[in-house]
Amino acid sequence: MLYRKWGSEKDEVVNYTSSIDSDKEIIEEVKLTMKAHVISLYLSGYIKKEAAKKMLAALNEFKEISQGYEDVHEALEDFLLKNVGEEAGWIGLGRSRNDHVATALRLKLRNKLIELLTEINSLRKTLLDKAREHITTIFPSYTHLQLAQPTTFAHYLTYIEEELASRWEIIFSTLKLVNKSPLGSGAIVGTNVKIDREKEAELLGFDDIVYNTLSATSSRADIITTISELTVLMVVLSRIAEDLIFFSSNKLVKLPDSHVSTSSLMPQKRNPVTMEILRAKAAESIGILTSLLSIYKGLPTGYNLDLQEMNKYYWIAVNYTISSIRVLGSLFSQIQVNKVNIDESSLATDDAELLSINKKVPYRSAYFEIAKKVREGSYKSTLKIEDSINMKAVIGSPNFDLITNLIKSRETKLEEDEKEIEAYKLKIISKVGELQVIENGIEE
Amino acid sequence: MLYRKWGSEKDEVVNYTSSIDSDKEIIEEVKLTMKAHVISLYLSGYIKKEAAKKMLAALNEFKEISQGYEDVHEALEDFLLKNVGEEAGWIGLGRSRNDHVATALRLKLRNKLIELLTEINSLRKTLLDKAREHITTIFPSYTHLQLAQPTTFAHYLTYIEEELASRWEIIFSTLKLVNKSPLGSGAIVGTNVKIDREKEAELLGFDDIVYNTLSATSSRADIITTISELTVLMVVLSRIAEDLIFFSSNKLVKLPDSHVSTSSLMPQKRNPVTMEILRAKAAESIGILTSLLSIYKGLPTGYNLDLQEMNKYYWIAVNYTISSIRVLGSLFSQIQVNKVNIDESSLATDDAELLSINKKVPYRSAYFEIAKKVREGSYKSTLKIEDSINMKAVIGSPNFDLITNLIKSRETKLEEDEKEIEAYKLKIISKVGELQVIENGIEE
Amino acid sequence: MLYRKWGSEKDEVVNYTSSIDSDKEIIEEVKLTMKAHVISLYLSGYIKKEAAKKMLAALNEFKEISQGYEDVHEALEDFLLKNVGEEAGWIGLGRSRNDHVATALRLKLRNKLIELLTEINSLRKTLLDKAREHITTIFPSYTHLQLAQPTTFAHYLTYIEEELASRWEIIFSTLKLVNKSPLGSGAIVGTNVKIDREKEAELLGFDDIVYNTLSATSSRADIITTISELTVLMVVLSRIAEDLIFFSSNKLVKLPDSHVSTSSLMPQKRNPVTMEILRAKAAESIGILTSLLSIYKGLPTGYNLDLQEMNKYYWIAVNYTISSIRVLGSLFSQIQVNKVNIDESSLATDDAELLSINKKVPYRSAYFEIAKKVREGSYKSTLKIEDSINMKAVIGSPNFDLITNLIKSRETKLEEDEKEIEAYKLKIISKVGELQVIENGIEE
Amino acid sequence: MLYRKWGSEKDEVVNYTSSIDSDKEIIEEVKLTMKAHVISLYLSGYIKKEAAKKMLAALNEFKEISQGYEDVHEALEDFLLKNVGEEAGWIGLGRSRNDHVATALRLKLRNKLIELLTEINSLRKTLLDKAREHITTIFPSYTHLQLAQPTTFAHYLTYIEEELASRWEIIFSTLKLVNKSPLGSGAIVGTNVKIDREKEAELLGFDDIVYNTLSATSSRADIITTISELTVLMVVLSRIAEDLIFFSSNKLVKLPDSHVSTSSLMPQKRNPVTMEILRAKAAESIGILTSLLSIYKGLPTGYNLDLQEMNKYYWIAVNYTISSIRVLGSLFSQIQVNKVNIDESSLATDDAELLSINKKVPYRSAYFEIAKKVREGSYKSTLKIEDSINMKAVIGSPNFDLITNLIKSRETKLEEDEKEIEAYKLKIISKVGELQVIENGIEE
Repeated sequence: MLYRKWGSEKDEVVNYTSSIDSDKEIIEEVKLTMKAHVISLYLSGYIKKEAAKKMLAALNEFKEISQGYEDVHEALEDFLLKNVGEEAGWIGLGRSRNDHVATALRLKLRNKLIELLTEINSLRKTLLDKAREHITTIFPSYTHLQLAQPTTFAHYLTYIEEELASRWEIIFSTLKLVNKSPLGSGAIVGTNVKIDREKEAELLGFDDIVYNTLSATSSRADIITTISELTVLMVVLSRIAEDLIFFSSNKLVKLPDSHVSTSSLMPQKRNPVTMEILRAKAAESIGILTSLLSIYKGLPTGYNLDLQEMNKYYWIAVNYTISSIRVLGSLFSQIQVNKVNIDESSLATDDAELLSINKKVPYRSAYFEIAKKVREGSYKSTLKIEDSINMKAVIGSPNFDLITNLIKSRETKLEEDEKEIEAYKLKIISKVGELQVIENGIEE
Repeated sequence: MLYRKWGSEKDEVVNYTSSIDSDKEIIEEVKLTMKAHVISLYLSGYIKKEAAKKMLAALNEFKEISQGYEDVHEALEDFLLKNVGEEAGWIGLGRSRNDHVATALRLKLRNKLIELLTEINSLRKTLLDKAREHITTIFPSYTHLQLAQPTTFAHYLTYIEEELASRWEIIFSTLKLVNKSPLGSGAIVGTNVKIDREKEAELLGFDDIVYNTLSATSSRADIITTISELTVLMVVLSRIAEDLIFFSSNKLVKLPDSHVSTSSLMPQKRNPVTMEILRAKAAESIGILTSLLSIYKGLPTGYNLDLQEMNKYYWIAVNYTISSIRVLGSLFSQIQVNKVNIDESSLATDDAELLSINKKVPYRSAYFEIAKKVREGSYKSTLKIEDSINMKAVIGSPNFDLITNLIKSRETKLEEDEKEIEAYKLKIISKVGELQVIENGIEE
Repeated sequence: MLYRKWGSEKDEVVNYTSSIDSDKEIIEEVKLTMKAHVISLYLSGYIKKEAAKKMLAALNEFKEISQGYEDVHEALEDFLLKNVGEEAGWIGLGRSRNDHVATALRLKLRNKLIELLTEINSLRKTLLDKAREHITTIFPSYTHLQLAQPTTFAHYLTYIEEELASRWEIIFSTLKLVNKSPLGSGAIVGTNVKIDREKEAELLGFDDIVYNTLSATSSRADIITTISELTVLMVVLSRIAEDLIFFSSNKLVKLPDSHVSTSSLMPQKRNPVTMEILRAKAAESIGILTSLLSIYKGLPTGYNLDLQEMNKYYWIAVNYTISSIRVLGSLFSQIQVNKVNIDESSLATDDAELLSINKKVPYRSAYFEIAKKVREGSYKSTLKIEDSINMKAVIGSPNFDLITNLIKSRETKLEEDEKEIEAYKLKIISKVGELQVIENGIEE
Repeated sequence: MLYRKWGSEKDEVVNYTSSIDSDKEIIEEVKLTMKAHVISLYLSGYIKKEAAKKMLAALNEFKEISQGYEDVHEALEDFLLKNVGEEAGWIGLGRSRNDHVATALRLKLRNKLIELLTEINSLRKTLLDKAREHITTIFPSYTHLQLAQPTTFAHYLTYIEEELASRWEIIFSTLKLVNKSPLGSGAIVGTNVKIDREKEAELLGFDDIVYNTLSATSSRADIITTISELTVLMVVLSRIAEDLIFFSSNKLVKLPDSHVSTSSLMPQKRNPVTMEILRAKAAESIGILTSLLSIYKGLPTGYNLDLQEMNKYYWIAVNYTISSIRVLGSLFSQIQVNKVNIDESSLATDDAELLSINKKVPYRSAYFEIAKKVREGSYKSTLKIEDSINMKAVIGSPNFDLITNLIKSRETKLEEDEKEIEAYKLKIISKVGELQVIENGIEE
């Protein structure tokens, strides 16, 4: 222990409060933050080039957190002190763990979100590609899990893509909230050290800074917002998982072999295990969000150690989301649709609509006429399933022509989104490159 | 009961599934949606002007939901049938409860969000105005609920404003997701009726349409996203409530009389009741979000009645948020700050920073020197509290000059946000005005 | 307003903190608590018989809470003051809203739990009765929603009964925790008034008292425990709802007409609406529990108004549970099981077991032999579905004889539980009767 | 992979569904379950003594789960096949992963609950011991975080003990629900193998069996019930943590050195870190419970892989609870209470009560008289703080004599609880000893 000069190091209480495990996730971001800080102290004249050089060199050597520290910050500072000497104590100037951990968390989350947004686009592409193959593949639709009207598999796939596109948009909005710099805010009220917060933000690829230092050091609202959006996405995906489990149970689709498992007792089983896990992980995401919101609720302003307990959940939530998106990509790229017979009762609505339109009967009257036949068992349709689909007259319906056009416009939208996230990513890389140039200049 | 021709009306089971109570909240929006539908049928030539006229007139007369119906849609259609005759049965053409309720929910939520965003801006203004009054009002800051460093009340107030500004931004993003039209999507796969979905969207003031009819009729993701952001906002506010309860307990502030209550047994009490309720309502918002996410998790695609159970929570969540914002506005416009003595131990960081900077001592060494004095009880500071604040050198700190500048720039940002939401609102009013013009034309 | 002599009565802030709505639920219990208090003051000699008589008479006349009060306690006391005169001010002696509301909540919850426990037993009886009818009714079983092995409908029904029996047991345990008296604890540290807390507890039918006055006035842990158990029960029931929705979708059962609804567009639908609502209410129960736990988390010891916000949820949770149990009772008493063909692949396990046992082949080898046939499509069974069931050799399986015995022993267990709750109820009625006797004595 | 003969082993999908990590927690319980199964097969004559001997020997050698397996069961069976040969395939007879994992989970949870119940008693003892030391130690009480009436530290400590005693009781009730055997239920409908389920239960120290095989293999309700009770306990503890953070902030107590930390920037800080972590872990427990309930909600009857995702949370929840109880024990055994001045306004209630009782003034009138003085600033008390406490006249108040008696009776209650859990534990040890005797007999 470095900062604390009391209490026993061996106290079992130390384990209770240690964040070493979750800090492992952010070592690189903590180091990058510290580099920006060292460069900032050097550029402001607080430390000499030689000292900066030594510290940057030592920073690059730091690889892992030894036991016995409260957290990565203490471990890193102690590592620098041991490798550079007392001079490394300068890094404590004008900083605290509070602004540094906030910065590292935002850096890491930013990178993870860019990865996620790219993966979502990849899944959207898979879905649209697959939809093109299935424009005329007849498929049932359900409301209340009861057979509703005939549709196509392309219609089902483009639905998922549109759901993803909305989530993509809002997650991108949260990325912009997250990508703001808290660095230079000290422990809570800033510092007497003349740190150029905007320059530091620039070097780390942030879009802007979190201005108020209370907010910078103790707010996690932007991060929680992000996790809440990931949770909504996971829950949206859980509906797809449920669909696939049900479709598979009813033999409407054949899931890829790598997505099903068998029983140790019952040799005939093909269990849709990846979709069950996805469904469960969606529920876990709800729990994770609940943990975060409950920890945060009623927490006094200013850093509290409760915030530390939140950190691990960010990465679990992000990783669940990314892996689930990938698993769905794997599944949809390989899924096979079985040829299915759709019960003709699903055509009752078409017949009622036709009766109303063609015979100029108010729809409700036509509806009751057909409903009566259905109840009495005398309903028969002269329509074919394909007719039903091609009669559909509104945008967004499975009508073969309309959906072909829709797929085209969705592809255009997807390309725009792909370009947007790519441009955003390049801008960050370019800015962080500037930090690298300065670091190289110091190290020469 | 209109649609269902079986089961007993008196069955207690009917109460279990009825949505009459929560449907009361959306009567006007359901009527507006139906107007757009009637106009659409008329414009497409499915119904005559005279029929449209009668239906619109009857629609305007519908005021409340009688008992005995499943929901507002059934009650409204039955009302039209009874008042207009069998001809009213035409309104069943090319529509279902599924697309109509989805439309009404989005219309209502859109209006509520505009109201909320306006209220948030109003609170931001109160905070910035109040901050201007308190630029030099000394106030303690806390980390871990332990006295940290001196700050000002303006610093505290601008922190809240910045937190609100971030929430405002993301809630506005969700508004844009919500303001898309599901209308014309039928029960699940669209309809054979040639409904111009884009025209309907225009008449209802929507920005765009939800394309895929599966998504339009059975997705609530955009709405859940909104509620999740309201929850994050409430939880952010709960921290302020906690602060105020603590500040009040420590007599740092005097809360307005209308915000405190007393005890029926203990005559001396001034209990900070509004802030306790706000803190609790934040927790309730977490529960509401959990309900919504848990209902939604694993729900098969396509409308399920589970979605109906979600509706009531939308309005509770929005109303909690709006009323909490207002209550905070009332509190902060009247709050008084007591004159407080801040313990000189809070200056230890300044002394360590000065020692480091002035004496060229690495910060960690300076820190340990001061820390030793603090532990031994020999620490004395020659600084005044005001010195501490004015030495702060970074943007976002309480430094009198820096925070004055920050308030100014925050005011500019706020004005932009005020203009943005006002323009958004006017655009909608203008579009819905077009519907009114058409309605008037029919009714002449 | 009675207690508070400041703030504006018209302040919109008053609405924000008022508990009038949720207090409506506990009016009778608040009155009963007050009666016990008045009798206690009389028995201890603090008030005269004549005064007690007037107060008891006025208490019996109090029917509803007028607007403008903080809560039921203030409204009731003001009612007494207005009807009895200043003398009624004696009821403020040795009591506070904190101990009285805690008492009323426990009284109400106790009654509701007794009602619930009785309803659960009633559903258990329906299930066992129905199981007797379906001992030989073949039914599929599923794991991972894939067809598993043949079973019977009786097997399915007795499973539900056993799940309910475990919930019944733990809910009864929570009832005993709830049925303890906080009365006489004042606002937080008790009172200088010589109140016989044990006597008051006796008169109200409590089993014991909550001793420590901090716990008595500000703990809601026993109540939260109860709600958590109701939530577990609801979630258990949601699995049954899901089963029935799936069984209905696959036409394995025919749900009663009163439990299904139709579509306003699609005339052929039979939507399993009660089960969808039940499934949703289970999710809502999770949200309610989350609200309660989140409100309670981190709340300082001693009464806080946050506790007031919790009250409404108790009754929602209990009512959801009771009505859901009743709805299931209605459903299961009328459900019809369709005759179903079960795919012979479900016999693969039996064939593997037979191969292993009869041919002395290690099970895993037998399993792979059969699995290979299944994969290659050459698997054929010589078994009949009934054979499969009757070969089952372990307690708890669907074997016709074994399950007949199991039903008998479950019926015995149920009878014991019925007697236990009935006896518990009678004991309370008898004790509260004593209070009535004393009240009558005073009123003579 | 052993059971599945398709899909790629290297598929990244395998990682998504693998439970290897969480299965590490139950290796010993899975082995014990398997031993009971092997012994059962031997006792029923399905396998020879020699085969049983080899399998038991191999079982004892199994230490860890290699990569590449779905779960511990597959890994274990493969280990046995590799070490014993094809003969080990007999262990697949009459069992499935579904009944075995359910058994192992209950065994592990049973042991953990016994450990927890013992730790709770230990904390209760610490609290009662400490209370004896602090019977006359004056301490403030708060409602609404505003100073209420004077009390003692013993009063505060015995409050915690009583809260714990209630939780202890209900957790013990859940232990009895958990300690029932699902073993011998096969995958879902039992097995054709003549397994004596009651004998197996006896050998594993279970109190009873879960009868219905659907319940035995796919219900987790008893376990969720347990976790819900642990969550309630954690939330109860979070209030104590909040108290201590506040007491510490107000310098009412001095926390042990090992429970506080300092700041890397501010050398004067003594941050109450263990209590912050406890408060956060309570919120996490809420999230964990939400995860479990949300996963479980709407899950079809029969095993689904979603259940696997639940397993890891059981151990996190239990370990959080046990470590938090221990941390509180450490804190309370070392806590120091500072000498505090309690504001005389806290005596206003006593003066109002005295005025009412002594002067025969109705309490409400006395209350208003005192309240007026308080508001006008003219209130003065002639009472001493100690007087206030000793005038308290009801059981459960801080009155020195009454609380001394209460401590004594609580100690008696605690001793009974200690004996009860010890006896329960010994009964299990004795039963499992029988299994060991049989195993030894086979291995001779």
